[in-house]
Amino acid sequence: MSRKFNKNPIRGMREFYPSDLKELQWVEGIIRDISELYCYEEFKAPIIEPVEIFAAKSSEELVNEQSFIIETKKGERLILSPELTPSLARMIANKSQELSKPIRWFSIPTCFRYERPQRGRARSFRQVNFDILGEETLYAELEIFNIIIDILTSFGATSKQFQLCFNNRRFVDAICELVLNVPEDKMPLVYKIIDKSDKMEEEEFEKFARDSLKDENLAEGVLKLKDNITVKELLDKFDNIPEEFYASDGYNELTLFERMIKDNNLSDFCSFSSSVVRGLDYYTGTVFELFDTGTENRRSILGGGRYDDLLSLFSEERLSGVGFGMGVLMLSLFLKTYDLIPDYASKKDYTDTIYIASIDDSVASYAFNIAKILREEDLPCILDYKFKSLKNQLKKASDHGVLITVIIGSKEMALKKVTVKNMASGEQKTVNIDDLIDEIYEIIEKFEESLSNGDE
Amino acid sequence: MSRKFNKNPIRGMREFYPSDLKELQWVEGIIRDISELYCYEEFKAPIIEPVEIFAAKSSEELVNEQSFIIETKKGERLILSPELTPSLARMIANKSQELSKPIRWFSIPTCFRYERPQRGRARSFRQVNFDILGEETLYAELEIFNIIIDILTSFGATSKQFQLCFNNRRFVDAICELVLNVPEDKMPLVYKIIDKSDKMEEEEFEKFARDSLKDENLAEGVLKLKDNITVKELLDKFDNIPEEFYASDGYNELTLFERMIKDNNLSDFCSFSSSVVRGLDYYTGTVFELFDTGTENRRSILGGGRYDDLLSLFSEERLSGVGFGMGVLMLSLFLKTYDLIPDYASKKDYTDTIYIASIDDSVASYAFNIAKILREEDLPCILDYKFKSLKNQLKKASDHGVLITVIIGSKEMALKKVTVKNMASGEQKTVNIDDLIDEIYEIIEKFEESLSNGDE
Repeated sequence: MSRKFNKNPIRGMREFYPSDLKELQWVEGIIRDISELYCYEEFKAPIIEPVEIFAAKSSEELVNEQSFIIETKKGERLILSPELTPSLARMIANKSQELSKPIRWFSIPTCFRYERPQRGRARSFRQVNFDILGEETLYAELEIFNIIIDILTSFGATSKQFQLCFNNRRFVDAICELVLNVPEDKMPLVYKIIDKSDKMEEEEFEKFARDSLKDENLAEGVLKLKDNITVKELLDKFDNIPEEFYASDGYNELTLFERMIKDNNLSDFCSFSSSVVRGLDYYTGTVFELFDTGTENRRSILGGGRYDDLLSLFSEERLSGVGFGMGVLMLSLFLKTYDLIPDYASKKDYTDTIYIASIDDSVASYAFNIAKILREEDLPCILDYKFKSLKNQLKKASDHGVLITVIIGSKEMALKKVTVKNMASGEQKTVNIDDLIDEIYEIIEKFEESLSNGDE
Repeated sequence: MSRKFNKNPIRGMREFYPSDLKELQWVEGIIRDISELYCYEEFKAPIIEPVEIFAAKSSEELVNEQSFIIETKKGERLILSPELTPSLARMIANKSQELSKPIRWFSIPTCFRYERPQRGRARSFRQVNFDILGEETLYAELEIFNIIIDILTSFGATSKQFQLCFNNRRFVDAICELVLNVPEDKMPLVYKIIDKSDKMEEEEFEKFARDSLKDENLAEGVLKLKDNITVKELLDKFDNIPEEFYASDGYNELTLFERMIKDNNLSDFCSFSSSVVRGLDYYTGTVFELFDTGTENRRSILGGGRYDDLLSLFSEERLSGVGFGMGVLMLSLFLKTYDLIPDYASKKDYTDTIYIASIDDSVASYAFNIAKILREEDLPCILDYKFKSLKNQLKKASDHGVLITVIIGSKEMALKKVTVKNMASGEQKTVNIDDLIDEIYEIIEKFEESLSNGDE
């Protein structure tokens, strides 16, 4: 007995057997339908990119500690994309002159992160991305929010099950600068602290904030940014808010957006959250995350925001946009939590598939010919090449779940006929080849009628 | 001006802008339709696998010189899959007991090879794979040949444009052993030489064979294996063929398969070729490659064969099967050579997309509401957020190629109406919201009628 290799995939790598893939394609199919209704065009970026374009804009942690790195023989350092946005920026920068604005693009790449696998987090993962580029107004945010809510509600999810939580980095900047008087060099640290706020227990978080900031007053202020669900609630926590703050872009943008949400009847689905700031460096305005309102799925299902200078790594052109990335795995876990993936999503429907049972190999060429006729009519076929007993072949046909088996013997071949068996009723009938297709459609129709009668 | 990064993808990596992706999806869609007619279930293997499973069965060159290797911090050596078969074997071995035989599986992975990019060969490539497993008879080969021919003819290709060339490694073994008396230790070398025969010029090849074998008699014999298009033609070249040869499995399997090809009317599409042997180590019986009959595409479009012991790396279970891998890029080049990719394959049809032009931002919420109504009826919408002149917005609508623009002004909003403009006829009409959907379908219907009248 020779040594055998492990039958499992590498830790954290996802693989899809046919029924798993069917379910994935069902989930992604619904998202793809929404992309069409909003006219977002699908594109596909390379899986491998140069390390630098991630190092420059994503978080350092992402590139240095959480990435799969390839070193080629020529000494290039390449990365398996941990996220789509830098590739999107590169591709847009390369053709920006030809593309009419706003650009609406959509993609579902497989991305890679070298992290500890856990619930909702694998080392290879599918991530849905929607981006609208070249639209500076808050209508871009509003369109993206509509897309997200349409995706969730298309699956049957309700506002009781999910909330789209938003904030604005310009607003957080204004709070930090004008209300908390955070020194400029401490701003990245403050963002990092806020970003961790809903990933830690209360006490642990308070200690973390105090230890990191080493400034009691500042820590007190920053801790107030945790867990507010209206702008007013947040501002009420501070005593002396200067007029300047109310005149800031951040304050005005955020409150205008709150109003737009209300005017467009999205208030049930969306809420302000002062603790949402997003870790990635390229966001500049609105930021948002989608959460399960229940307790089973703690990690956000999607995250996104406004970036004002997407192309800066690649060109001088300024292009502002809004986009989000949604983990398909997290979405699926959310949908499963609320029983929103139907059984049929992972099952192939064999109703119109024809099983062809041949008595022995002397009729095999004739059977291939029948299959050809059926496939030309768009009817899928499975040929049985084992030529065991008819009973055995009918059993196999019924295991597949087909409705119709075509039986071929030497008499059938000699007379250019076939025997058609309705597996639901047990009836069978020998017909001329020319009548085969009509016979099949008649059986399918009768079966579908009986199903809908059964429903009544 | 800060330093800018390169806007191009890494050498050899493919990226797809929306129209490129549309074309790719059109090509792959036709292949996917065939997979359904033959009931091959789609699966998806990980992109990253352990190096060992490729090193064991693929060619050494493939793993050592032509692969992208990742070394993780833990010191594991991982590979970006250069081909699907070892992953297929692993996944089947892991669930073989649950899977009813024969297993019919299909996949279109992205694979990676670190080679010099050239016509039809990129460093990342999509490869169509079909495999039937657990079927020992030549009917498996026949089914796979039917699939290949159906794929090609579905695109409109004819037997004048392509040939599926086959051979049998057991037959080549019998020739080498019983006719040429090749010593066993030289067998791998002989296979390597034959495999190169159609990749070199005649003279170069002859020199290569003589230099490699260092045995004039043997070289003479091996050179006879080049370029024969019937079994008889090949055998006629040898004087003394022992009876044993005609009794060999290899001879009998190949000639039986030739007969099956003929009986099933596939002779136009398929021919024997003594120079097809396939480089990869796991093939044991029938081997085949698909070629363009013209001169523009010299590399094969697909290759495959029979493997008798697919699972050997992972389990003791013996499973025989037939499969092939087809490069989507090579297929596309072939299709383009014969003008078999229609223009519409890369173009989005905007006929049923509604462009929504709003007079100014005071009607924006109303416009979002109209969009919502349309999308609920499965009509894609594009909203214009620039609120420039109506002329400008209509120009943008017509640039997109939409048939219908919905125009919204403050009067329309006050009266709960919209103005619907037929961009083909120039007619426009103000209707109640409740009549909007009917009006739109009427315009689409009229337009489609005018198209079909134009065709007559």
